[in-house]
Amino acid sequence: MNNYSKRFSVGIAGFRGYSGAELVRILKHHPSVEAVLLEHREDSEGAPGPLGQKPAQVIPANAEAIAREKLDAVLLATPHHVSLELAGPILETGTRVIDLSGAFRLRDAETFSRWYKERHTRPELLAQAVYGLPEFYRESIREARFVANPGCYPTAANLALRPLLAAQVVDRSRGVICDAKSGISGAGRKASLKTSFCESAENFSAYGIVEHRHVPEVLQNSGLGEREFTFTAHLLPVTRGILETIYLRTERIEKAVDLLSIYEEAYENEPFVRLYAPGKVPDLRAVQHTNFCDIGFVFDAESRRAVIVAAEDNLVKGAAGQAVQNLNLMLGLPETEGLL
Amino acid sequence: MNNYSKRFSVGIAGFRGYSGAELVRILKHHPSVEAVLLEHREDSEGAPGPLGQKPAQVIPANAEAIAREKLDAVLLATPHHVSLELAGPILETGTRVIDLSGAFRLRDAETFSRWYKERHTRPELLAQAVYGLPEFYRESIREARFVANPGCYPTAANLALRPLLAAQVVDRSRGVICDAKSGISGAGRKASLKTSFCESAENFSAYGIVEHRHVPEVLQNSGLGEREFTFTAHLLPVTRGILETIYLRTERIEKAVDLLSIYEEAYENEPFVRLYAPGKVPDLRAVQHTNFCDIGFVFDAESRRAVIVAAEDNLVKGAAGQAVQNLNLMLGLPETEGLL
Amino acid sequence: MNNYSKRFSVGIAGFRGYSGAELVRILKHHPSVEAVLLEHREDSEGAPGPLGQKPAQVIPANAEAIAREKLDAVLLATPHHVSLELAGPILETGTRVIDLSGAFRLRDAETFSRWYKERHTRPELLAQAVYGLPEFYRESIREARFVANPGCYPTAANLALRPLLAAQVVDRSRGVICDAKSGISGAGRKASLKTSFCESAENFSAYGIVEHRHVPEVLQNSGLGEREFTFTAHLLPVTRGILETIYLRTERIEKAVDLLSIYEEAYENEPFVRLYAPGKVPDLRAVQHTNFCDIGFVFDAESRRAVIVAAEDNLVKGAAGQAVQNLNLMLGLPETEGLL
Amino acid sequence: MNNYSKRFSVGIAGFRGYSGAELVRILKHHPSVEAVLLEHREDSEGAPGPLGQKPAQVIPANAEAIAREKLDAVLLATPHHVSLELAGPILETGTRVIDLSGAFRLRDAETFSRWYKERHTRPELLAQAVYGLPEFYRESIREARFVANPGCYPTAANLALRPLLAAQVVDRSRGVICDAKSGISGAGRKASLKTSFCESAENFSAYGIVEHRHVPEVLQNSGLGEREFTFTAHLLPVTRGILETIYLRTERIEKAVDLLSIYEEAYENEPFVRLYAPGKVPDLRAVQHTNFCDIGFVFDAESRRAVIVAAEDNLVKGAAGQAVQNLNLMLGLPETEGLL
Repeated sequence: MNNYSKRFSVGIAGFRGYSGAELVRILKHHPSVEAVLLEHREDSEGAPGPLGQKPAQVIPANAEAIAREKLDAVLLATPHHVSLELAGPILETGTRVIDLSGAFRLRDAETFSRWYKERHTRPELLAQAVYGLPEFYRESIREARFVANPGCYPTAANLALRPLLAAQVVDRSRGVICDAKSGISGAGRKASLKTSFCESAENFSAYGIVEHRHVPEVLQNSGLGEREFTFTAHLLPVTRGILETIYLRTERIEKAVDLLSIYEEAYENEPFVRLYAPGKVPDLRAVQHTNFCDIGFVFDAESRRAVIVAAEDNLVKGAAGQAVQNLNLMLGLPETEGLL
Repeated sequence: MNNYSKRFSVGIAGFRGYSGAELVRILKHHPSVEAVLLEHREDSEGAPGPLGQKPAQVIPANAEAIAREKLDAVLLATPHHVSLELAGPILETGTRVIDLSGAFRLRDAETFSRWYKERHTRPELLAQAVYGLPEFYRESIREARFVANPGCYPTAANLALRPLLAAQVVDRSRGVICDAKSGISGAGRKASLKTSFCESAENFSAYGIVEHRHVPEVLQNSGLGEREFTFTAHLLPVTRGILETIYLRTERIEKAVDLLSIYEEAYENEPFVRLYAPGKVPDLRAVQHTNFCDIGFVFDAESRRAVIVAAEDNLVKGAAGQAVQNLNLMLGLPETEGLL
Repeated sequence: MNNYSKRFSVGIAGFRGYSGAELVRILKHHPSVEAVLLEHREDSEGAPGPLGQKPAQVIPANAEAIAREKLDAVLLATPHHVSLELAGPILETGTRVIDLSGAFRLRDAETFSRWYKERHTRPELLAQAVYGLPEFYRESIREARFVANPGCYPTAANLALRPLLAAQVVDRSRGVICDAKSGISGAGRKASLKTSFCESAENFSAYGIVEHRHVPEVLQNSGLGEREFTFTAHLLPVTRGILETIYLRTERIEKAVDLLSIYEEAYENEPFVRLYAPGKVPDLRAVQHTNFCDIGFVFDAESRRAVIVAAEDNLVKGAAGQAVQNLNLMLGLPETEGLL
Repeated sequence: MNNYSKRFSVGIAGFRGYSGAELVRILKHHPSVEAVLLEHREDSEGAPGPLGQKPAQVIPANAEAIAREKLDAVLLATPHHVSLELAGPILETGTRVIDLSGAFRLRDAETFSRWYKERHTRPELLAQAVYGLPEFYRESIREARFVANPGCYPTAANLALRPLLAAQVVDRSRGVICDAKSGISGAGRKASLKTSFCESAENFSAYGIVEHRHVPEVLQNSGLGEREFTFTAHLLPVTRGILETIYLRTERIEKAVDLLSIYEEAYENEPFVRLYAPGKVPDLRAVQHTNFCDIGFVFDAESRRAVIVAAEDNLVKGAAGQAVQNLNLMLGLPETEGLL
């Protein structure tokens, strides 16, 4: 942990949330990046902690302080309305920005206001934002000054669907269904009755049926039409992890290995996508605390039905880990640095 | 708890399992039925328990003892291979039998051996067994001497699907998908690494994809063809409860209330099926420790997509509660006795 | 559920909290008591629930409405500052009151202000309140118009300690230690970061060390001096249940059965205290969803050390169940009605 | 992860258990040590896992294979009867051994047979084994060929108690009580009804009261007499972590800071013991997945009562992490290598 050799300084706003704390954890072990905490609002919810801990450096989360510190990049692990407020001024200082919220992921402001039920206050920034899914937009991310880090659900859904859609083996007329389940940290770190232990332990519920905000993100990046893609989110009584069970009918696929080949071709050099033998699927345990998205499937050749299971840690590949993957690309560092 | 007034004696085999223990619990409060425990095999796994508890009456689980006790009915909460062995001899004594296992739910032995991967050893009994889903087979159950209690997953799936299929509003060419999640008690009470706390808490996994043994039970009772119905089971880190998210496209339905009307017509007098306003769906909490199956849905009129959520307690409506509902019918008692 | 035969009407304030909801559940099945909900403040946190549920009767939680309805008793499952406000006016209407909060459990206002760090606003009512632990104050409770229902921790501690202290077999000079663990529902039903799933699942913590508000309640009812009794509370990642591990040295006890005899003598006719054979102790499962307090112990004769384990459901014997036990006594009903 | 530069080869027996898997995880990131898996018995319980994973090197767990591979050390994460069998032959090859079981922790065979209820089959090895608690036996560990890694409970208890006992500020006549709670991984990785999800989630239980096998390990290393130390273990529904609440009366201590000073003096240079300000105590979260043992306390000056809370991860500081700490010392590496 000799920070003298760390070449880049990167600010983290929202460091007390679950994604923000995960960013702090990852960057602590990152050999080339030093984290600087950006205080956005007074928040006294810190645990006491042992004696003798050196407090991390904290500076205000505003453009002046960020410019003064000459940060190489800023990671916004903030709610989307905070990101809408902070991103512009920081970008103007010339500092790179990776935003983990949903504020800048959709290409047009109309779509944003339809799904988020509010007006987009910084539509002029949307064109600048590169969608940060490295497996598909790696080269643009390398050049980008502003990256919109993908949502947790769309990351797994896009990784599971895009190779098959690109290979044109999905019978889109039959529709694609994504039944998604997420751990409770996906709801953010806050006091809430719904996510209290007594209400959520030993419970399970569906939400955002058909209308979840992450739907347009999948449509935009997969090319599926709105009526072709049905999504339901569920709240799983675990702290972290997302598992999506995806149902579709294939075309021009005869056996399971053909399906596997498409995935293998798409991901053979990808460090963070792992595939399973046909008939085997990942569980949450396989991916928790890692930056992997694991994909397995069962294929019924006779009926051409494929059931695909994609799993990831919502706080890592679904948020902080992917943000660091993007950061590495933007800073010209090896893509996996600090993530294995 | 004055047992003198209890008019019927009912044996419970497998009373140390989760479904069996639930039967014991329900019958303890049942005003007309007295439970007798049937010991099938030596099992010393009992908890110590407080002093001064009167031990329940335990007799051997064989035809002679059952005949001697003049039991009015026997509930088999046993694995299917044990039920295959016990059901015949008990029926021959003239005692009514309700079997909670999968041994006698499928009408033909071929289907059984295909899905259970073993030969059916008592095929001649299959014709006698009435499928114990009271909402659809109430009159046959009243007359039956032998009832095959439905599986946990098929109970919710059939209750959610049958009214729509009967009303012919399902576009079967598009397929019906049932993404099911069950609490761990569904795996039975036994030592197993997979269901140990450390392996299953903070975890979530899919199993039985496409090939689950409960599939033919849904097909047989819904009329759906094998390629029209896709089923995936998942292991949820909760003790009890099943939630199924069902995806289908409708025909001849224009608005959500039309769909609701079909359900309302089917279930208006049903004591154990509860419906939700369109757009509202049940969670597990709503049904745990009850004999209700709750059904809600979201309907997207434009695309004719319906997402139906059905929830039940796998040990109650999915097993012991439904068995007592069937028992009440067979004994001529009010159907809800001991169940509200 | 024929309410025509229910002879008494009893109001419940705070019916949306965990203890209040437990009161509603118990009284629903109580043969002689009909519940009336008392709305204290606007609260819209209700779950949607199925169609066709008859809403319960709700009236305002004030003296006028209560007098108008001629309620036989009112149960206050409210925070102590709300109970301080409501108890007096309701008592003045002549209605019996059972308060589940800590407002009226301590006999003098000084002790209250020392441990609750606030002034007692209705000290004149303290003398009227009977401490509602039926095992020790049954006769006074029968006559009482106003009962202070015991705290969850003190119920188990007093039941475990009083017989031994009364028999003078505790070496008080060595001190008595109570290491208590409670499920999270003990913290009440509210949005709070500390009791959120992500913060409390897979976690465990001590709180209220030495200084917990429940300490003076144990001292007052056991006769132990402040320096003789050390108490630590812990937050257990379960929804309900309290388990206390109590350490003391005995005097004049030679073998485990002598200790058991003292308990047996104290509790032989008690319907809600269950004892275990020496060397056996209860776990939480034994008491959850019941009104029992289970007591077991290990005794090391040579060193005269006794380790006593007492378990109860914090929402039942530790709150709502005990309140109904008190209610039964106050209304002249059989003490166990609705509780077995 | 360039293994060419790893200077030492270290075998791990029992690598499929929880402590063994934790050893594998730690050594994977250890810069100087390469792990070799030692297969003791056929075990097919492996998860499927993604495609393309390089299998780790596995050799048989016997002296010949170990000698042939010229391993620098062997870590036995095996049950004590397996360690009793393996330790001797491996030591004879000249390879260093760290045993994580209870086989060699007690200095004399009599004590072992009394608490483990079985004869010690290799008593002649006991004198060679150094007790691997680095905070107290660092120099002996550096020289040792054979280290008995401490039990999970005794690690926290000894770290919390030894400084106070050494400073002679504990009133031993009043006794020391240790109320310990452990996550379920402490029971090992195996199929068992008691540790199944349905039996242990939403439950809590005491076990090993007064008679736990870890008691003599605390006595031997703290100097407390058997009647002076009372220990109770509890099974906590979490996967990992131990929290011990320790009660004692002090002598010659006037204020909380005096107690803190004793701890600070004992641990000022210790990398893996963290202290809290008086009145603050650690929770499980503070130590999970770390090699820290955190210690905090509440002190009541008037009554001289101290309540000490010590927390650690049972699989790290309580097992695998401490074993690697010992390994580093034995191999002449920096003590914290691979552990921060």
